[in-house]
Amino acid sequence: MTVSHQRSQEGAQQESGGAGPPAARDTGGVTALDPDIAARLKRTSDGLVPAVVQQHDTGEVLMLGWMDDEALARTLTTGRATYWSRSRQEYWVKGETSGHVQWVKEVRLDCDKDTLLVKVDQEGAACHTGDATCFDADLLPAVPGRG
Amino acid sequence: MTVSHQRSQEGAQQESGGAGPPAARDTGGVTALDPDIAARLKRTSDGLVPAVVQQHDTGEVLMLGWMDDEALARTLTTGRATYWSRSRQEYWVKGETSGHVQWVKEVRLDCDKDTLLVKVDQEGAACHTGDATCFDADLLPAVPGRG
Repeated sequence: MTVSHQRSQEGAQQESGGAGPPAARDTGGVTALDPDIAARLKRTSDGLVPAVVQQHDTGEVLMLGWMDDEALARTLTTGRATYWSRSRQEYWVKGETSGHVQWVKEVRLDCDKDTLLVKVDQEGAACHTGDATCFDADLLPAVPGRG
Repeated sequence: MTVSHQRSQEGAQQESGGAGPPAARDTGGVTALDPDIAARLKRTSDGLVPAVVQQHDTGEVLMLGWMDDEALARTLTTGRATYWSRSRQEYWVKGETSGHVQWVKEVRLDCDKDTLLVKVDQEGAACHTGDATCFDADLLPAVPGRG
């Protein structure tokens, strides 16, 4: 199963720069996701679940990605965090082109079953800008609470 | 401004158990959000932005909430994390009924301007189940990556 996943990930990656239509997401088909997990998952109207990605040892929040059932199945079985890219409309194995791989350490589902927490070991920068995290660059002005 | 916010938050909270229609979200109107921030923000089709909520000192990811412009404005100006409740369709000042307040320490916007990171000081349990975080209860089986 890992082999065929790897093959399809590479296929998707190769298409990302092409002029052809993006790979369609198979929302109706059977995915490799454990049916017990699939039955619990609550998805957006697009069939997606937000995934908070955290560096497992430092606790840094690296980014937020989106997963459909297939992306979650691949994340749980391949050891590499895999997302559904909403902008490119294709599966996205983090680090496939950049080398900035996210090795999966732990995956958790929240109390409402509509959000994932993916703890990873991030190689290199998590952000495509080169920043360590996607939240490094834009601090908003806030009145701090008294806690 | 803080006083009037506080008043409207309490009003929304009081309505949450009532039989009447939920308070409508004013998506078209002028909010208190800084126009420069509002211009940068990329929202879902529902006008919302996911907010990752993190305990400022331990780094624990506590929950994921959703904010519209008004909820973000209140979060930035009142010192208390405020969300738009998708299930109740109303503003939700975290801790208003439970006492489990989130005092705002820092708010960051990500590189794509479509996700917020809210660092807070959490009083008591973040999760409505009584768990410290919303991700405590449901660890999914994952094959760990080699990192």
